Amino acid sequence: MEERLRKQLDFALEIDKEKNVFRQTHLSGHGRNENDAEHAWHMAVMAYLLREYSNEEMDIAKVMLMCLIHDIVEIESGDTYAYDEENKKTQKQREDDAKEKIYSILPEDQKQELIALFDEFEENRTAEARFAHVMDNIQPLLLNNSNDGGDWKEHEVTSKQVLSRQEKTRLGSNKLYQVANQIIWENIRKGNLKE
Amino acid sequence: MEERLRKQLDFALEIDKEKNVFRQTHLSGHGRNENDAEHAWHMAVMAYLLREYSNEEMDIAKVMLMCLIHDIVEIESGDTYAYDEENKKTQKQREDDAKEKIYSILPEDQKQELIALFDEFEENRTAEARFAHVMDNIQPLLLNNSNDGGDWKEHEVTSKQVLSRQEKTRLGSNKLYQVANQIIWENIRKGNLKE
Repeated sequence: MEERLRKQLDFALEIDKEKNVFRQTHLSGHGRNENDAEHAWHMAVMAYLLREYSNEEMDIAKVMLMCLIHDIVEIESGDTYAYDEENKKTQKQREDDAKEKIYSILPEDQKQELIALFDEFEENRTAEARFAHVMDNIQPLLLNNSNDGGDWKEHEVTSKQVLSRQEKTRLGSNKLYQVANQIIWENIRKGNLKE
Repeated sequence: MEERLRKQLDFALEIDKEKNVFRQTHLSGHGRNENDAEHAWHMAVMAYLLREYSNEEMDIAKVMLMCLIHDIVEIESGDTYAYDEENKKTQKQREDDAKEKIYSILPEDQKQELIALFDEFEENRTAEARFAHVMDNIQPLLLNNSNDGGDWKEHEVTSKQVLSRQEKTRLGSNKLYQVANQIIWENIRKGNLKE
């Protein structure tokens, strides 16, 4: 088999491990913890179905691909919970090391392409990155809301933390930001989120 | 909230259930059974990375979306194992009923769009459908090969059954058909697949 194809298949097998990187979010119906591959799949489908609410014109194929690959680095670096302030301090360095390691399995051109796409997501300066971040925020919000805010209660997350995280949602979609806000305020009212 | 957005969010929450539809394939490293959402995510990423091996020009965004949604019906109909001849007899009818039910949660235009995309995948008559089928075949093949053919051994699958299923792979990609064949013959040689 050619070296190029061999590398691509090695990478395909390596990313299978993303299915074992678990997040703090729980599946609906008070289910088990969600893993990164499931989260990425859910984000990509939602991005397609909700694309009409983007603040800006965007390339939806790029958004979907960004959603699909944005957490691959966590195979190496592990998941960092959105409200874990201590671990977030080292997140950038851990993920930079991880991206170099994992994407080096691919042929050089695809390594560079996927690192660039991951960086674009992280930097959040394009329409596509901003909308992918909307999905990264509202997908777990929908699940957590369906579970009466169980994830927030478990980690004693405050309304201020959650509202602050949703500022990124506003950048990508005013409409979905309204939805997020409505969900958050309902959960504050119900006592699922600490003031 | 507008009715349209409400329906879209209801659908987004409903498809979370795909993470609990388990397949016969096991994750690499002799892991647990894979679920449909993970399988769909893996197929979509692989489709993007391996698109150069398609026999025909194709719209890769459409292929990725097709991969992402092709098993959503199984939330209602359940997974049908590729080598379960008895259950395959009723598969078409069960999936037709399921697609009507689940996609009806969406606004009418998106319901029609996703049913058309699902039907296009099933009918396998376009370049995009053929390449999505290549992914549907080689993704579990890669995992199963990494586990010494454990899934085939468990179900006493024959080489004839597996080779016959890979005929669809040839329609989408001659190159990846060669790879699949090579993997299958190695597993026959090792005794992982019954002659």
